[in-house]
Amino acid sequence: MPAMSKSTNITWHDGDVPREQRIKQLGHNGATLWLTGLSGSGKSTVAVAVEKLLLGRGVNCYRLDGDNVRHGLCDNLGFSAEDRAENIRRVGEVAKLFADACVVVLASFVSPYRADRDRVRLLHEQAGLTFAEVYIDVPLEVAEQRDPKGLYKKARAGEIKNFTGIDDPYEPPTEPELTLRTAEMSLDDSARAIVDFLQHQGIIL
Amino acid sequence: MPAMSKSTNITWHDGDVPREQRIKQLGHNGATLWLTGLSGSGKSTVAVAVEKLLLGRGVNCYRLDGDNVRHGLCDNLGFSAEDRAENIRRVGEVAKLFADACVVVLASFVSPYRADRDRVRLLHEQAGLTFAEVYIDVPLEVAEQRDPKGLYKKARAGEIKNFTGIDDPYEPPTEPELTLRTAEMSLDDSARAIVDFLQHQGIIL
Repeated sequence: MPAMSKSTNITWHDGDVPREQRIKQLGHNGATLWLTGLSGSGKSTVAVAVEKLLLGRGVNCYRLDGDNVRHGLCDNLGFSAEDRAENIRRVGEVAKLFADACVVVLASFVSPYRADRDRVRLLHEQAGLTFAEVYIDVPLEVAEQRDPKGLYKKARAGEIKNFTGIDDPYEPPTEPELTLRTAEMSLDDSARAIVDFLQHQGIIL
Repeated sequence: MPAMSKSTNITWHDGDVPREQRIKQLGHNGATLWLTGLSGSGKSTVAVAVEKLLLGRGVNCYRLDGDNVRHGLCDNLGFSAEDRAENIRRVGEVAKLFADACVVVLASFVSPYRADRDRVRLLHEQAGLTFAEVYIDVPLEVAEQRDPKGLYKKARAGEIKNFTGIDDPYEPPTEPELTLRTAEMSLDDSARAIVDFLQHQGIIL
């Protein structure tokens, strides 16, 4: 239990179904693929392409992203530094539960701070679950030119403050498991690289 | 977006894989089974038995319970009325994500307040997902005699305050989808009743 935990009178249930048996019965393991990169880098697009490939193989795969999680689990959080960290923490915990359930999670979040991402990694490693950082790496100019949601335009006009890449920093991963330069490679190749990675790691057959 | 949401600059992604296709490719739908009842009523025991039956059929099924969620997602929450409500809210949101991913969730929480459970039900219904309240109904005397974690003893001794059934109320479901009187029926029959329900609802084949 974390040192800061407020919870008392609780005991940990390991459950009676061993993980190996769950993996065997479902035919695949789970893992968290953490797609990080600038807004407009292509995280969600890549995630959808991977989801299609995996579902086609009967592998349960689920996308978590800033857009849909913020409507539910994290809808009582704003965009202060503290709230952003809590947002990533909650998503990290949820991703861990999915990975434990043998679902391949595609978590697409700008998640600009190294410390937040490292915390999610540690959480998985402590639970013996696979976590892989997938750096969706495009030059700011490319992301800004794509601007699928018109957010860069608003940030440049000062209508949005603390926008990653404009007036807030993005800290690139130092040792990502995968780097996908979506400005230089096709969507198919990007998605395939992730599926190959999962196969190589023994997460899927 | 809820009226109270603090989040701005977000758009909802419906995703490019229709749910029908996900269900077809995985071979089953998802649902949230919300097991509510006193501490010691048998919620976790029933959940483990159902999990074994479903995994044996290749249906992905995952247990969420107060004991393991409180170590992670909710470890910054205590046991005040406000924190208990936020605890159930977060778990409800996570259960919804799992159900959306076509996982059968077995959420085992004392969850003594009707209003909290009704909120989770509404959340699912608004998303077009199946939610079923499973009332694990045993007399307080039976639960207290079982006392698997020694909590009733501590509550009677005044070492634990606001303990459901002793000095805090339990509000039974008014219209549960299933009621399982675990003091009067076998564990096999209880688990089977839940699997039959899922089959009848078309969640599993």
